[in-house]
Amino acid sequence: MSTRLEEFWTTDPSDLLRVGDGFVLSAEETDSSPGFNGGKSLGATALADGASILSELQEKFFANSTTGDNRKVLLVLQAMDTAGKGGIVRHVVGAVDPQGIDYVAFKAPTKEEREHDFLWRIKKNVPRAGRIGVFDRSHYEDVLIGRVRSLAPPDEIERRYGAINQFEQQLVDDDTTVIKVMLHLGKDEQKSRLGERLERPDKHWKYNPGDVDERLLWDDYQEAYQIAIERTATPDAPWYVIPADKKWYARLAVQHLLIDAFNAMDLDWPTADFDVKAEKARLAAS
Amino acid sequence: MSTRLEEFWTTDPSDLLRVGDGFVLSAEETDSSPGFNGGKSLGATALADGASILSELQEKFFANSTTGDNRKVLLVLQAMDTAGKGGIVRHVVGAVDPQGIDYVAFKAPTKEEREHDFLWRIKKNVPRAGRIGVFDRSHYEDVLIGRVRSLAPPDEIERRYGAINQFEQQLVDDDTTVIKVMLHLGKDEQKSRLGERLERPDKHWKYNPGDVDERLLWDDYQEAYQIAIERTATPDAPWYVIPADKKWYARLAVQHLLIDAFNAMDLDWPTADFDVKAEKARLAAS
Repeated sequence: MSTRLEEFWTTDPSDLLRVGDGFVLSAEETDSSPGFNGGKSLGATALADGASILSELQEKFFANSTTGDNRKVLLVLQAMDTAGKGGIVRHVVGAVDPQGIDYVAFKAPTKEEREHDFLWRIKKNVPRAGRIGVFDRSHYEDVLIGRVRSLAPPDEIERRYGAINQFEQQLVDDDTTVIKVMLHLGKDEQKSRLGERLERPDKHWKYNPGDVDERLLWDDYQEAYQIAIERTATPDAPWYVIPADKKWYARLAVQHLLIDAFNAMDLDWPTADFDVKAEKARLAAS
Repeated sequence: MSTRLEEFWTTDPSDLLRVGDGFVLSAEETDSSPGFNGGKSLGATALADGASILSELQEKFFANSTTGDNRKVLLVLQAMDTAGKGGIVRHVVGAVDPQGIDYVAFKAPTKEEREHDFLWRIKKNVPRAGRIGVFDRSHYEDVLIGRVRSLAPPDEIERRYGAINQFEQQLVDDDTTVIKVMLHLGKDEQKSRLGERLERPDKHWKYNPGDVDERLLWDDYQEAYQIAIERTATPDAPWYVIPADKKWYARLAVQHLLIDAFNAMDLDWPTADFDVKAEKARLAAS
């Protein structure tokens, strides 16, 4: 962790939030702010500070890809409706250069997509070298809504956990840092957020009657998350379960995971693959 | 123009920068700031103010696409090296939600792309409804470097101007606001910027010996721009030639073009396509 950030955190949140053995989703708090030494107002300061750190690291990361560095980052975002995926994209990912982002939102699969294996559309959208790929929903939908709504037979759902682990291991082997995030929202907090969308005409477009349909299956979804996370949390492709009732905290935590990922890469500016002195002479003569 | 922005501008820059009859590129200044009532420092204030205006308009624009509005915006960015395309993407486009951006950088065409018509790869990358498409370089390369470097026979280059006009008219007919921007950089300013990239190790990755090769053909490129712009500036798909020696001005001007495009759409939040009262009752019971 960089010195500038250390003042805000008492403990590296990556360690606090990473899913380990014996994980029980229902035992995880949704309204806490693990490791952060302050409240909402200090959180805003920390987010702005982190944005400039992240942006600089991302530029170095991207720069290296122009000279052959093959590394990528993939941030997978999963959550119940209103948990704040959009805010993460806007306020965390949005702080870096749009050129460095491969963002993709996975909606209900199209007819064509349904004719292929569930990973077909996913594999087409993995990030390019030097990019932060962002999956706004992902292949995990196929073991979440897929399981809860029985969109596939039980043995197919069962097969998918292994297929996901294999796929993600391939990504890791291909120099991808995989960061899987579940924004963990409380059921009451969701009710309040959906209520706000219904109260405010400028938020109506974000509301979908289907959101309440899914809400009515809350416990089934929590169970599906429990199973998905425990079956696919690996040392190389870990899950982070992030308390999401406090939007400011969830944003900070995800920002921190990205900063940590870049710090672990030990990035520096790439060295010139041309003769600097000769180029100066050519430029001077031009 | 919104009231908040009017204080910064003496004249709508869209009108001042839009290419009209009798356009002569060589007569256009590169170091001026047409219509802006201030210098660099006020420019920074205006850019921050404009960013929040643009961001709000973009959200409304995107919101409407979720209820069937088919409109798109396409921003085409063309310029000599170092003119500041990257800064426009980062500081102007980067101010809006990444979910609302369809950014694509067109590099030298691949072997597969060269086996198709020059518009093949372009057509595959036009923006989706509710998005701001950004072409970082574009089909215009095929009549710029294409012409200067004789990458295609003269009659094929000649054919392309008409093909571009026809293609862009199709985009317009399909509800796309097409904004074509040439960042107009002075030759001396380019020398200074390339020199800075050579001086600073953290900028070496942005330098390419090929940049000087192209610089040696400066006059040919200016002529190719002159021809391309006069052949393809139409009322529906206008060109804007933006003085680019002052980075802060070019960013402001492009930001303003986007704001103008959204203001012309007369955007409002979409009305709910569900029964708000009934949904409130369902939510309360959930």
